[in-house]
Amino acid sequence: MSNTIRIKSPATIANLVCGFDILGLAVEEPFDLMTIEPSERPGLEIIHLDDYQLSTVPEENVAGGALLAMLEDVKDAPGIKLTIDKKIKPGSGLGSSAASAAGAVFAASKIIQQQFTQEDLIRYAMFGEKVASGVKHADNITPCLMGGITLIRSIMPLDIIPLNSPDLHITIVHPQIEVKTSDARHILKKEVQLKQAIRQWGNIAGLVAGFMKGDYALIGRSLEDGIIEPVRSILIPGFDQVKSRSKEAGALGGGISGSGPSVFMLSKDDATARAVEHVMKDVYIKIGIDFKTYVTKLNRQGIKIIE
Amino acid sequence: MSNTIRIKSPATIANLVCGFDILGLAVEEPFDLMTIEPSERPGLEIIHLDDYQLSTVPEENVAGGALLAMLEDVKDAPGIKLTIDKKIKPGSGLGSSAASAAGAVFAASKIIQQQFTQEDLIRYAMFGEKVASGVKHADNITPCLMGGITLIRSIMPLDIIPLNSPDLHITIVHPQIEVKTSDARHILKKEVQLKQAIRQWGNIAGLVAGFMKGDYALIGRSLEDGIIEPVRSILIPGFDQVKSRSKEAGALGGGISGSGPSVFMLSKDDATARAVEHVMKDVYIKIGIDFKTYVTKLNRQGIKIIE
Repeated sequence: MSNTIRIKSPATIANLVCGFDILGLAVEEPFDLMTIEPSERPGLEIIHLDDYQLSTVPEENVAGGALLAMLEDVKDAPGIKLTIDKKIKPGSGLGSSAASAAGAVFAASKIIQQQFTQEDLIRYAMFGEKVASGVKHADNITPCLMGGITLIRSIMPLDIIPLNSPDLHITIVHPQIEVKTSDARHILKKEVQLKQAIRQWGNIAGLVAGFMKGDYALIGRSLEDGIIEPVRSILIPGFDQVKSRSKEAGALGGGISGSGPSVFMLSKDDATARAVEHVMKDVYIKIGIDFKTYVTKLNRQGIKIIE
Repeated sequence: MSNTIRIKSPATIANLVCGFDILGLAVEEPFDLMTIEPSERPGLEIIHLDDYQLSTVPEENVAGGALLAMLEDVKDAPGIKLTIDKKIKPGSGLGSSAASAAGAVFAASKIIQQQFTQEDLIRYAMFGEKVASGVKHADNITPCLMGGITLIRSIMPLDIIPLNSPDLHITIVHPQIEVKTSDARHILKKEVQLKQAIRQWGNIAGLVAGFMKGDYALIGRSLEDGIIEPVRSILIPGFDQVKSRSKEAGALGGGISGSGPSVFMLSKDDATARAVEHVMKDVYIKIGIDFKTYVTKLNRQGIKIIE
């Protein structure tokens, strides 16, 4: 066992417009701060410095669930003390639970004398997602751990593909309303028109090609979702305005982050990302809903050790 | 007007497994031979050297329909004599009509003193597809004209994206049965399960990423179609055997070419492509259906001028 590890575990944007359930990316901000240290007390101790009233019972805690899955595979598991300072608000649609789960297993892997592959860490972290939402999805965990833009081609078997991409500047607005992931999922139709599915796979193919070619115009044209967004955006007041006015301000495009309520927009440069922030603020001030905005960038590294 | 132009217009594979309606590629063989020359007789004269009993009335001929659309945009349209030696059997699922339509407009563009963009040529050739099947689709025309692998992100507006790819060796078997494009289209369900659509867009994203990264293993894993193939393959005797035995022989994967009945398999090298041909022959000899096979390669150039 080594010494104390302190990390920044970033927010992530899953369900990247036409890439519902398969594409996600990591951002530089916001991020959770986590500290892990070996403890002489056996078992797992979790401390939350934030005031989100999250359970610190390991089995009921997202980071705890992930760590417990990991420690099952460790011989002579050491005592671990994990301190979490959550900056990514739970329920924001910004991968708050993934940041906890992925951050915890990443940090633990640095103090446990055992080799883990990145796929191991993803699998352990998925147990944390199960604690959060009942579903072991990987589309936030993967970009959180690996950075950049990641494609989950398949969950069973797990098949993860990192995608090249050009620099992206990202503006996020988090209107302070509650959208439950389970509601956002139930509202979806179980069947889609073949015609629309074909249009969607043209866009997803275009988006992947756009990222890999570094073709901003193609990325912009491909950021179109005719299946999920029309249904889910109803749950987010101001969505249509944010989207249309952000594009007028120069954004390439964007959509709902995760299952909402946060909305994100991609831009080619920082100045445009800031103009988009201005538009987002204006929309929610006029509607009269509290909100928080972030102007950030694609995070190519994922979780970072800070000391 | 310049002199006589003689071209090879290649066969193409559309509906590339999970890339139904959006992905196509050109092959080196088979190809049609076409000769175009200025004529002192005004209007359009079409001569078929093959014996497929195709109409030579311009309005009823695929090449004719495409050329008539093109000539509408030409001032002082010259007289044109087009001679077609069709080697790609109509109804094979190998883009026979696209080869005629695209070949005709490509060749004509070389003898008419007017500038055309590649998109112009694609649009004209689509009128030929309309003569053939009533639908102005572009997924065979585009790889025929441009070579390589092409993505049609959208038809309206037309958005075509050439994709990088590694070398691909391609084995094709054309069982000599008839599958009408219209039947193949009617058999499809108009709705698909969201779950399956998501799996399909994971695969299409993986396939595009695999082509662009030159990752053969990823290409192989992504060549999966849970929506169209299970329905359409019923129309092609021997399909399941060809597919499973070709993969045992080392093929990356493959599926129905266009709307069938031809079946294609992609391989990393020529030796594997030949082993796959052996398997295909064995399947159809045992079933007792006449067939034709081709062992060919990805055609990166598309239509070629040969003299």
